[in-house]
Amino acid sequence: MSLIVQKYGGTSMGSPERIREVARRVERFVKDGHQLVVVVSAMSGETNRLLGLAKELNPEPDPREIDVIASTGEQVSIGLLAIALHRLVLKAKSYTGFQVRILTDDAYSKARILSIDETNIRKDLDEGNVVVVAGFQGIDDKGNITTLGRGGSDTTGVAIAAALTADECQIYTDVDGVYTTDPRLVPDARRLDTITFEEMLELASLGSKVLQIRSVEFAGKYKVKLRVLSSFTDVNSTDMGTLITFEEEEAMEQAIISGIAFNRDEAKITVRGVPDKPGIAYSILGPVADANIDVDMIIQNASLEGLTDFSFTVHRNEFKRAMQVLNDTVKPATGAREVVGDDRIAKVSLVGIGMRTHAGIASRMFGALARENVNIQMISTSEIKTSVVVDEKYMELAVRVLHREFELDKPPVEEKMKP
Amino acid sequence: MSLIVQKYGGTSMGSPERIREVARRVERFVKDGHQLVVVVSAMSGETNRLLGLAKELNPEPDPREIDVIASTGEQVSIGLLAIALHRLVLKAKSYTGFQVRILTDDAYSKARILSIDETNIRKDLDEGNVVVVAGFQGIDDKGNITTLGRGGSDTTGVAIAAALTADECQIYTDVDGVYTTDPRLVPDARRLDTITFEEMLELASLGSKVLQIRSVEFAGKYKVKLRVLSSFTDVNSTDMGTLITFEEEEAMEQAIISGIAFNRDEAKITVRGVPDKPGIAYSILGPVADANIDVDMIIQNASLEGLTDFSFTVHRNEFKRAMQVLNDTVKPATGAREVVGDDRIAKVSLVGIGMRTHAGIASRMFGALARENVNIQMISTSEIKTSVVVDEKYMELAVRVLHREFELDKPPVEEKMKP
Repeated sequence: MSLIVQKYGGTSMGSPERIREVARRVERFVKDGHQLVVVVSAMSGETNRLLGLAKELNPEPDPREIDVIASTGEQVSIGLLAIALHRLVLKAKSYTGFQVRILTDDAYSKARILSIDETNIRKDLDEGNVVVVAGFQGIDDKGNITTLGRGGSDTTGVAIAAALTADECQIYTDVDGVYTTDPRLVPDARRLDTITFEEMLELASLGSKVLQIRSVEFAGKYKVKLRVLSSFTDVNSTDMGTLITFEEEEAMEQAIISGIAFNRDEAKITVRGVPDKPGIAYSILGPVADANIDVDMIIQNASLEGLTDFSFTVHRNEFKRAMQVLNDTVKPATGAREVVGDDRIAKVSLVGIGMRTHAGIASRMFGALARENVNIQMISTSEIKTSVVVDEKYMELAVRVLHREFELDKPPVEEKMKP
Repeated sequence: MSLIVQKYGGTSMGSPERIREVARRVERFVKDGHQLVVVVSAMSGETNRLLGLAKELNPEPDPREIDVIASTGEQVSIGLLAIALHRLVLKAKSYTGFQVRILTDDAYSKARILSIDETNIRKDLDEGNVVVVAGFQGIDDKGNITTLGRGGSDTTGVAIAAALTADECQIYTDVDGVYTTDPRLVPDARRLDTITFEEMLELASLGSKVLQIRSVEFAGKYKVKLRVLSSFTDVNSTDMGTLITFEEEEAMEQAIISGIAFNRDEAKITVRGVPDKPGIAYSILGPVADANIDVDMIIQNASLEGLTDFSFTVHRNEFKRAMQVLNDTVKPATGAREVVGDDRIAKVSLVGIGMRTHAGIASRMFGALARENVNIQMISTSEIKTSVVVDEKYMELAVRVLHREFELDKPPVEEKMKP
């Protein structure tokens, strides 16, 4: 008997028919002898409907009240799923965030979980209940309702799995696992049986939107075995999706490269001709941070005649604001020659734990892109990823070229047998 | 400065436009210098939508889970109203049932309020907030979410007013007060400026569905001044609806008769030819009560040759079940001659605190009905009401005749001046 936490997203809970199917899937695991905690999201469309009502009344609604409103979506879902489970003659009991006591900080709409009281859940499990928990929500220490932000139900699932030291946390979604890259872009994209947490983190943050990044961090921190599966397979399907492991040894068939992430949400900004002296990075990025603009890639070139060029990327939505800060504040303060920006770029990243031990990956990547005349505008590397910024119009080409170059369409065993 | 509790029902909260109007009405009272607690229902249609989803998944849904689901309607409302108040630059804060700590028993879907912790609400009021509280909901001592049953938001309003010893509890609804009878039936029906609690109780329980009966009982118990007003008048209207008083002296212009209630939800059952001996009432009504069927009017005629007829009314929905219990159990056990029933009846009641001191009201009532050839099937009287059961088809006629007979279309001052 295992203790399994399952999480079902909004699409999986999108209609009474879909909820019935979730109930049947839960039933299968119960009949296999497992204890189950099921974390659910709001029915798809519900959160947007609620936020729409709020915006109609106030274009700048108070975040505390938004959380009061938005958290009802999941509360409806837990009740409905419990009722559907009862219909299958299963014992089931629902819990809101405050009923579990999922304690968070008070950062409304993006709260972080501080602790989970698992006492009552464990008692209910031991009495033979399926426990159904509202994702995405908690309370702060004053009893205010908080939400974890979009996608936060994944985090709830992982956090509950951690609190209960569950054997596995299964995240059911509308894809059947983690792919080497987006199959819509590369039809050859292959589903991975396993992937390490570090790779998953890079893939998630770089744009493969399978799991919310915070939930993966959480899983890594508390060593929760995470599995991504589809809720659209047959209820009795034995397909086990993609397992995200926290130990490299578990990933037996590990390839050098796990996947290719891409992202066209960013914009590139270059501050040209700034004096190359200590503190210059801070005097450029300080005002940007003060304006609450997050910076992703940062590159500073070697200086020429005491002047250097400083480049970084920001989210495309914040491009204009960032350019304004730089022109109004940074340029006069630093004496920079000019500030130039480009919001028609894309970032393409190779991700693979194998990069740690295999040399030459980066140059192989650059060579493949060069052969297709894809110009590289920025490069940034970390231990397990290499990212390049290219003109937006080359993004799809770059992803396909690299997918082929690193033979990601083939299972990793073959990859290993290569010389 | 007064402390006022206002309650707005589902129709008053039915759309963003309506919610904006509630906010403007609240604003007017705040600007007049009052402290306000606003209790709200779910947006109209929302509770039914949620219960519909539940029934789709399980025709016999668990009441605990139904309360989890249904209580979200009010939670959405409190957030939306708080946001709308912020838009008018008012300080406002929302509270769910568990956040106030409205403690109830654990009778899901029809819970009773045991206590209300008013500490936080009072603190927020003193800090200049409008406090917005979810109606209809509470928690039991184990932290389970409960609801007070349909119309329970009225009870929440009154209970909060009692806990805060508010100066007044204003119930906003889609009618502008309590009428002498249903204006749809009698166009001359007149709105009452004041009515006593006892009369209101009789009118509510007899079918004038302005206020939920439990909220009136609550108001009487805790001496909360209750006022029924329309949320459909102009926001700046000074119309003050109907005040429900708990002291007869306050009802200065009290007429003998306040109003006429009517009800066609009942059915009449007569057990004929039962031996008139001690315990016979119990042996007839015991099995009915055991079957959880509520009985309203009960009449036992004087006996003839040791046999008597025993009549009572039940809710029309339970008529068939009651007949079955009587035929299967009571008839053989008591040796009754026959059981006859009629579900095409109506009950018409005169209500008035003046009946206590004025003789002859009943005979005047019977005389008026006789002149119109309305046959009376059953009669039942109490201190402040006289009810008759008539054939359903005469109900409207009976109400109109009595309304005219007691001159309810005219203000009570004139009534008093009559000889």
